[in-house]
Amino acid sequence: MMRARTGFTVNAIFITHWHADHFLGIFGLVETLAFMGRTDPLPIYGPPWVHDFVESVQRISRHTRSFSITGHALEHGSVVPFDGYSVSAFATLHGIPSLGYVLEEDKRPGRFNRERAVALGIPPGPLFGQLQRGESIHITRDGVETEILPGDVMGEPRPGRKIIYTGDTRPLQHLPAVAGMVEDADLLIHDATFDDQEADRARDVLHSTAGEAGEAATALGARMLALVHISSRYTSTANHIRDAKRRYEGDVILPADLTVLEVPFRS
Amino acid sequence: MMRARTGFTVNAIFITHWHADHFLGIFGLVETLAFMGRTDPLPIYGPPWVHDFVESVQRISRHTRSFSITGHALEHGSVVPFDGYSVSAFATLHGIPSLGYVLEEDKRPGRFNRERAVALGIPPGPLFGQLQRGESIHITRDGVETEILPGDVMGEPRPGRKIIYTGDTRPLQHLPAVAGMVEDADLLIHDATFDDQEADRARDVLHSTAGEAGEAATALGARMLALVHISSRYTSTANHIRDAKRRYEGDVILPADLTVLEVPFRS
Repeated sequence: MMRARTGFTVNAIFITHWHADHFLGIFGLVETLAFMGRTDPLPIYGPPWVHDFVESVQRISRHTRSFSITGHALEHGSVVPFDGYSVSAFATLHGIPSLGYVLEEDKRPGRFNRERAVALGIPPGPLFGQLQRGESIHITRDGVETEILPGDVMGEPRPGRKIIYTGDTRPLQHLPAVAGMVEDADLLIHDATFDDQEADRARDVLHSTAGEAGEAATALGARMLALVHISSRYTSTANHIRDAKRRYEGDVILPADLTVLEVPFRS
Repeated sequence: MMRARTGFTVNAIFITHWHADHFLGIFGLVETLAFMGRTDPLPIYGPPWVHDFVESVQRISRHTRSFSITGHALEHGSVVPFDGYSVSAFATLHGIPSLGYVLEEDKRPGRFNRERAVALGIPPGPLFGQLQRGESIHITRDGVETEILPGDVMGEPRPGRKIIYTGDTRPLQHLPAVAGMVEDADLLIHDATFDDQEADRARDVLHSTAGEAGEAATALGARMLALVHISSRYTSTANHIRDAKRRYEGDVILPADLTVLEVPFRS
């Protein structure tokens, strides 16, 4: 987090599953936050066992902690709202209770139709801003006071961005229960522990291959695919990229630690 | 440990005190040991609360652990024997239960007095080896069978090496209870969190200054002094070295991570 310059103003932590490589860093993070004088409570969300984990963190950090930590168990379909976005949990398949997360921004206002506003006799100026902010206005037209509603001049609300992180799992297209939650992502960050040569092994240990991740991106209409959780057995990731591109025509990336991605709005 | 090429054959872990910067690494180490297939039990020694800590490690590593972990509470004067050396605990002063450790090798056999052996009529050869290994031998001298004891040809047993690690503490010379345990070290690794300009702060937060560490090395007859636990507030460590050297005439080092020191035998 220091090297990525994210700052340490963490609002909340979401854990996909309770395998140690997915949560051990929290112990040190809590120490660092305390060292920096944090007083805001820190909520930790995750599959069941989150309360046991939080209790462990509380015991371990008892000498230094300057803020409270709360545990919140999530299940398939849980939605946690934040200011301007929400995080939803969906059940994945990894042999222990496990969740993936959908981070979705709130809808943005539609586009302002300036030509139509002028045609309606609204004088350019502050009244445009009121309509764009969703307020009704009154104007006098042909000597008659008329109410103009935002819907008269604003297009349909536009979607925010949607990012899906699968955590460790068999590929999403094999999980019927997630239908309706994981389509249409602007960025799908999918388990790709193995390349396609290790498909049997991926099935045995409940991970995915890069090709399966590519299949997921195609089946679910994702606009960009990031392959993650690559096994340390691979010295090259060329096969992963190739295997994913065979099944998916969109952009495939295999981000290194601290890679920064721009996720564009759709419209 | 990978970079230092120590291997992962850890026999035991000794913790000085339960502040998180002194034990958080164990969680990840336990995962790594399990990943490498360890089956040998791993004992963890430390001040009281070690059992709570071990219980936390057990809970956190429950999915992956392939070996047992046991907790052992030590107190001032506890001695843990190993093959060829022992580790003894002494009480330090840091505001919570805290221990320093003395690692001391077993005594080595004295020097073999070859001239004396020849004078006693022992033929050079395998009998010399038996005496050096502490076994008595029988020779026939002037027609009479005579027993030769190892003590007849071996000098006094020579000391092994003694290394003291203080952990976080006020300086050892301020702690009367440790007298008799911490003298005469070949290497004293002493808390030197602050330079001498911050002596008040060191007293307040129960750490030591570099000058106090130097004083300890002199008072306790240490043969080499390593200054450790330097506060991250210092961008230069020149003051630490200078402050320690003012109070101590032996070698002062301020080791970087992964520094390897040779500790010579005294004789």
